[in-house]
Amino acid sequence: MRKPKIVILGAGYGGLLTTVRLQKLIGVNEADIVLVNKNDYHYETTWLHEASAGTLHHDKVRYDISAVIDRSKVNFIQDTVVEINKDEKKVMLEKGEVEYDYLVIALGGEPETFGIKGLKEFAFGITNVNSSRQLREHIEYQFATYNMEEVKDDNRLSIVVGGAGFTGIEFLGELTNRIPELCHEYDVDQNKVKITCVEAAPTVLPGFDQELVNYAVSQLERKGVEFLIGTAIKEATSEGILVAKGDQEPWEIKAGTVVWAAGVRGNAIIEKSGFEAMRGRVKVQPDLRIPGFDAVFVIGDSSLIINEEINRPYPPTAQIAMQQGEVVARNIAALIRNKQQLETFKFDNKGTVCSLGEDDAIGVVFGKKITGSKAAFMKKVVDNRALYMIGGASLVLKKGKLNMF
Amino acid sequence: MRKPKIVILGAGYGGLLTTVRLQKLIGVNEADIVLVNKNDYHYETTWLHEASAGTLHHDKVRYDISAVIDRSKVNFIQDTVVEINKDEKKVMLEKGEVEYDYLVIALGGEPETFGIKGLKEFAFGITNVNSSRQLREHIEYQFATYNMEEVKDDNRLSIVVGGAGFTGIEFLGELTNRIPELCHEYDVDQNKVKITCVEAAPTVLPGFDQELVNYAVSQLERKGVEFLIGTAIKEATSEGILVAKGDQEPWEIKAGTVVWAAGVRGNAIIEKSGFEAMRGRVKVQPDLRIPGFDAVFVIGDSSLIINEEINRPYPPTAQIAMQQGEVVARNIAALIRNKQQLETFKFDNKGTVCSLGEDDAIGVVFGKKITGSKAAFMKKVVDNRALYMIGGASLVLKKGKLNMF
Repeated sequence: MRKPKIVILGAGYGGLLTTVRLQKLIGVNEADIVLVNKNDYHYETTWLHEASAGTLHHDKVRYDISAVIDRSKVNFIQDTVVEINKDEKKVMLEKGEVEYDYLVIALGGEPETFGIKGLKEFAFGITNVNSSRQLREHIEYQFATYNMEEVKDDNRLSIVVGGAGFTGIEFLGELTNRIPELCHEYDVDQNKVKITCVEAAPTVLPGFDQELVNYAVSQLERKGVEFLIGTAIKEATSEGILVAKGDQEPWEIKAGTVVWAAGVRGNAIIEKSGFEAMRGRVKVQPDLRIPGFDAVFVIGDSSLIINEEINRPYPPTAQIAMQQGEVVARNIAALIRNKQQLETFKFDNKGTVCSLGEDDAIGVVFGKKITGSKAAFMKKVVDNRALYMIGGASLVLKKGKLNMF
Repeated sequence: MRKPKIVILGAGYGGLLTTVRLQKLIGVNEADIVLVNKNDYHYETTWLHEASAGTLHHDKVRYDISAVIDRSKVNFIQDTVVEINKDEKKVMLEKGEVEYDYLVIALGGEPETFGIKGLKEFAFGITNVNSSRQLREHIEYQFATYNMEEVKDDNRLSIVVGGAGFTGIEFLGELTNRIPELCHEYDVDQNKVKITCVEAAPTVLPGFDQELVNYAVSQLERKGVEFLIGTAIKEATSEGILVAKGDQEPWEIKAGTVVWAAGVRGNAIIEKSGFEAMRGRVKVQPDLRIPGFDAVFVIGDSSLIINEEINRPYPPTAQIAMQQGEVVARNIAALIRNKQQLETFKFDNKGTVCSLGEDDAIGVVFGKKITGSKAAFMKKVVDNRALYMIGGASLVLKKGKLNMF
C-alpha cells in the first residue's frame, strides 16, 4: 500500500510547529512528511522589529530549519510556492512540483498597502529578514550620509512609521533606544532627529486596554516620538509622505525613511489557487480545514477564525499559529489512522505583551495588566517559549533571550 | 611685551605632531599656541581603507585631540578654516577669526578628480571618517538590498575602484577580505560579486619595486580582483563608469559602487588665500617656509618638496608630514628665541609598506624587500609608530594594533 504524503507549505510558527509535532506523532511507515520553504531558515517574525531597528542582529532572529527537523522523517525542499493545484492535489514550485494527500497551508501573511500610492516603491517593511536588514542598513546609511553633505538635509534624519499597531509600536520602542547610539556613532546631533508615527485609526494599539495604551504613548513621546492619530497616509513619495485628517487638505511630512507597519493580509497564493478568501484569509472550519476540501488545512496568518465573544476575527499572531499547528498535527495523524472524528480548534489566549524596547513593555498576561520591567521580562518569556515549543531547551539555549534579569 | 602667537591649522599627522612637539619645547610664558581643527578628533588617514571596507570600526581610526594636547599650553579651537589673510596675518574661520605671528598650514590634501565628469556626484571617497563610513554603509546597503529585489540586479554587487595607487590597493586588500563576510551576512552568492580596479597609468603602484608589484597583483587577482591597467575612467554615472584604453571607443562597466582612490591634491585654501601653488601644493623653502613669507610654514599634503635623486616630488605620506612637523616645531622655537639660523628639512625614508589585508602586505623597509605576514607585521609597526610619535605609549595601548603576532 502506498504511504500517504503530508505536505506542509511554510516554515513559520505554524508550519514548523506542525512539522515537529508530526515527526513525533507519526511513524516512518505511516506517512511521508514533506516541508517546503523558501529559505533554509526559520525566522522569528515577532522579533523583526529589533533586527529592523538594529538593536538585535538579524542572525539572532533566525535559525536553520535543519536544527529542528528530523531528516530521517521529514523531507525538506527549499523552494518557493507558485500555486496550489487543488484538483490534481499538487503544489507547483518554482523549481518543480510536489503531490500531496494532505496539505497544510502555512505560508504566512503579506503586507497590506490598501492601494496607497507609492508605498510599495518608497516605504520599507518589517516583513522578513531581507526587508528588516535592508531597513536597518537604510537608516544607518542616512546617518552616515548626513555628515558628508555640504548642505545638511535634516529630512534624512526624519523617520516616519505608518501604523501604531503592534509592529509599529514595538519598532518605535527599539528605534528610540537605537537613536542615541546612532547619533553617537555617526556624530549626529540628536535634536536633529525626528520620529513621527502616523495612524489612521482613532487610537494607538486598537483593542488594547486604554490604561496600557496611555502608558505606551507617554513613554514613547518622552523618548521623542510624535503621534499623529486619526491621520491617514495618502501617498508615499521619494521625499516623504502626504497625510490628511478626515477630509482636510493633505499636508506633507518630509522623511528620508518611511516604514510601513500597518497592515497584514493573507498570502496571495490562496486566491491565486482559487480558494475562497477575504483579503487572502480563508475562513476555516473548526477542524482548520477549508470548507469543501477535506485534505487541506490552513493555519497562521492566512487563516481566519472568529472570536465569538466580540464577533470579530482573532488578529494573526505567533501564539494562535502555534496552537493551530498543534491541532493540525493531531488531526492529520487521526486522518491517516482513519479516525474520522477530528479535534476542534479553540484559541487559548495566554496573553499579549507589546515591547517598548529592551527594558520596557506593556501587556496583559493571564488576565493581569503589567507594565515596565516586569512586562519586559514577560516579553522575553514569551519569546523564549516560541523557541521552546519548536526546538526544545537546546534551541532556547542557542537562540533564546537569556539576559532576563 | 606681548607674547607671540603660534597658530597651527589642521590636526592631521603634520599639524598634531607640530603641536605636541611645540607644547614640550616652548614655555607657557614664551608663546601662545593655538590649534584649529574642523573636528575635535584626529583620524588616521592611512587606516581609512580599513574603515571604508568595514574591516575596522571607524571609531578605532580616530582619537580625541584632547587626549594628546596639553590644555594649559594649547588653546584648541574647533572650527573650519575659510581663508588666510596673509597681509593682516589672520585666519578667517567659519565662526570667527584668529590672528597669528607664526602660522603652520597643515590642512591636508583633497581628492583630485582631474575634471572627470560625474566623479564628484557618483563616486565615493576614502578621504576622511565621514566619507569612509558612508562608503562602508553604502556597500552594506547594496548587499542588504540585493536579496529584497524581485528581479536581482547583479550590478549592485559590482564594485569599481578607480586608481591602483597606495590607497586603491590597500582598500582592495581589505575589501577582498570583507566580501566573504558580507556574502555570509547577507545571504549573497559570492560568485555574483565583481571587483574591478581601473588604473590609467601603465602599472599598478607606480614607483614601487616591480617584483613586489607582481606579488600584490597576483594576490589580489587570486582573491577575485580584475585589473584594467592603462585604462582611463572617462565618466562616472549613476549606473557605473565609462572607461577607455588610449583613443579606443569607451565602454561601460556597470557598478553599484564606484570608489575614487586615484588622486590627491593640496588644499584649496592655499590657492584661495593667494599663495603660489601647483595643484594646491606649495613648493616650500628648505626650512619649510613659503618663499617670501617668513612667518608661514606649510607641511604635509599641501607642501611640495623635490626628491633630488629622481628630480620628482616626494609623494605625500604620513611619514614625511610627521618628519616635517618635528622640524617646524624646532624652527618656530628658534624664531621665537630670535635665532635666525633655521634647520633644513631632509626626508629620511624609513621605508614603505603597502597592506594587502589583515595578514598580507608588501614593502621596502630599511632598504629590504618584504612580503606576506612579515610585511603585514611591519605594517602594524608603522601604524603603531605614528600613534607613538604623537601620543606616546599610552595612545598605542589605547588605539594601537596590538594583534601583532
